[in-house]
Amino acid sequence: MKNPPSPFKPFDLTKYLDEKRELVNRSLLQIIDEKFTDYRLCDAMTYSLMAPGKRLRPVLCLAAAETVGTIDDDVITAACGIEMIHTYSLIHDDLPAMDNDNMRRGKPTCHIKFDVATAILTGDALLTLAFDIFSSRSLCSRKNRKLWLAVINAVSKAAGHRGMIEGQMRDMAAENNSLELDDLKKMHYLKTGALIEASVTTGALLGGGSMASIRHLETYASNIGLAFQVVDDILNVEGDPSKMGKATGTDQSRNKSTYPGLLGLTQSRQFASDLVNNALHAIKIFGNKANPLLALATYIIERKR
Amino acid sequence: MKNPPSPFKPFDLTKYLDEKRELVNRSLLQIIDEKFTDYRLCDAMTYSLMAPGKRLRPVLCLAAAETVGTIDDDVITAACGIEMIHTYSLIHDDLPAMDNDNMRRGKPTCHIKFDVATAILTGDALLTLAFDIFSSRSLCSRKNRKLWLAVINAVSKAAGHRGMIEGQMRDMAAENNSLELDDLKKMHYLKTGALIEASVTTGALLGGGSMASIRHLETYASNIGLAFQVVDDILNVEGDPSKMGKATGTDQSRNKSTYPGLLGLTQSRQFASDLVNNALHAIKIFGNKANPLLALATYIIERKR
Repeated sequence: MKNPPSPFKPFDLTKYLDEKRELVNRSLLQIIDEKFTDYRLCDAMTYSLMAPGKRLRPVLCLAAAETVGTIDDDVITAACGIEMIHTYSLIHDDLPAMDNDNMRRGKPTCHIKFDVATAILTGDALLTLAFDIFSSRSLCSRKNRKLWLAVINAVSKAAGHRGMIEGQMRDMAAENNSLELDDLKKMHYLKTGALIEASVTTGALLGGGSMASIRHLETYASNIGLAFQVVDDILNVEGDPSKMGKATGTDQSRNKSTYPGLLGLTQSRQFASDLVNNALHAIKIFGNKANPLLALATYIIERKR
Repeated sequence: MKNPPSPFKPFDLTKYLDEKRELVNRSLLQIIDEKFTDYRLCDAMTYSLMAPGKRLRPVLCLAAAETVGTIDDDVITAACGIEMIHTYSLIHDDLPAMDNDNMRRGKPTCHIKFDVATAILTGDALLTLAFDIFSSRSLCSRKNRKLWLAVINAVSKAAGHRGMIEGQMRDMAAENNSLELDDLKKMHYLKTGALIEASVTTGALLGGGSMASIRHLETYASNIGLAFQVVDDILNVEGDPSKMGKATGTDQSRNKSTYPGLLGLTQSRQFASDLVNNALHAIKIFGNKANPLLALATYIIERKR
C-alpha cells in the first residue's frame, strides 16, 4: 500500500533557480537590447554577460528581497547590475597578467575570444554600466532615493579596494606563498564574500527590510560566502571540468593555499557544512519566508560546478 | 611718465589654477588618508592619483559650480571622484595591451612602477572608489539626493560603453587606419569630450544651476573638450616632451589619424581657435561670473603640456 501524499510540499529549488535565472537573463537581455550598439565592445560585453553562469549573486539578491518583502523592478535592476560587476571581475581575473585562464562558463574567456585590450575595456564597461543602471533606475523609481544610494554605496564598497579588488591582489600574492587559515579566510571574504554579502544587503534594502532583518541576512550571507569558496576549493581538487566549464587542479599547479591543502578534504567538507549551519541558524527567524535562502545554502554545499 | 593703474583687474588664471589644484590635491589626500591602507594596491592608487596632473576636469567642475553658484564640500567631493575616473582611464590606456606607454605625468606609468596585474586592479579600484565617494557623500549631504543620483548617472554614462570606453576602442581601432574628419571628431568626443562635459555638468548640477544654464555650460564644455584634443594632437607633433611629461611624435609612429594629419598644422590651430570662440560665446550670459571658465578656455588653447 502506498503512503498517502504528504501535506508538506518540499521546496523545489531547481524550479526556483530556473525561474529566477530566467528572470535575470530576460532582464539582462532587455538592458542589452535598450543600451547596446552593434559595436565590438558591446559584442564582447554581451558575450561575457550572457555566457551560462550560475547567477548566484542576482538570485541571492532576489531571494533576500522575497524574504523581507517582494521582488519588484528595482530589485531586478539591482540584481542585474550586481551580475555585471561579477562578470567584469571574472573577465579581469582571467587575463594573462592575472590568472591567465582560457575557459570560463564553458566558453573561451573574453580575451581569448576577442583580445586582451578589448577584455580589459569590456570589464571596465560592465562595471561602469552597473552604476549607470543603478542611478537610471533610482532616478525614475518612486522608492526612497536614500535606499538606492545605500545600495550604490554597499556595492561599490564590496567591489572596491577594501573588498573584491583587494581580495584579488591577495589571491595573486598568495601564489607560491603559503597562507595561514585566518589569512586565507580573510582573502576569500574580500574576494568573494563581500560581493555575495552586498547582493543580499541590496535585496534586503530594496525589499524594504528592517535594519535587524538586514543584519540577520548579512550573517547568513557571510557564512554562505565562505562556504561557497571552501566548496570551490574542494571542486578544484575533485570536480569534473566538463560540468564546471573550467579547468580543475589549477590551485595545486599554481601552489595556491586552499582549504583542502590546509585542512584536508574531510575537514574542509565539515567546515563548509558548519558554515552552512551557521547561515541557516541566522535566518530561522524568517520562518517559511526564507525557504529559498535555505535551499540556496544547501545547494551551495552540494553543487557540482 | 607711467600710466595710472588700470581700474580693470585682469583675471589671474595662474593663481586660480594653483588655488583650485591645491584644493583638489588636498581633498584627494584627505580621502586617501581616510580610506587607504598600507597595502600595495593603495600604494599604486596613491602613486597614480597624486602624480602631478593638470587636474583639468576637477577644476572645470569647480569653475562650473562657481559660475552658477558656489563651491561646497559636495562639489569638491564630486571633482575628486571625476579625477579618480580620469586617472583610472590613463592607467588602463597606458597598459601594454593598449597604448603601451612608459611615462605619464612625468613618472613611470603604473604598470612600469608596479606590474600589469596591479595596474589593471588599480584602475578598477579608482573607478569603483569614485562611485563609493559619490554615494557616501550623498548619503550624508543635506542636498537633494536626486541631484547626486543625476551626477552618478551623468558621470557613469560619460565614462561608459557609449562614452569614454567606446572612445578608447575606436582610438585603438584607428591605429593604422585612416579616419574621416567626422569619425575623428566623434572618436574624440567619446574618448575625451564626454567626461569633460560631465565634469562641467556635475559642477553645474551640484552648484544649483538651472536646466538652461546647465545647457549653456555643456555647449561650452563640448567645444573646449574638442579643442583640448586638437591641441593635444598639435602638441604631439611640436610639443616639448620634457614639459609634457610624456613622449611626443607617437601619433605619427603609430599611424594615427590626427587633426594636423588631416587638416595641416595651421588649419588645426584655426579649428581649435574657432572651437574656443564657440565655447566663449556659450557662456557670455554669465557675465563676469564665468571669468574662470573663460580663462580656462584660453589656457586650453595656449597650453604647452
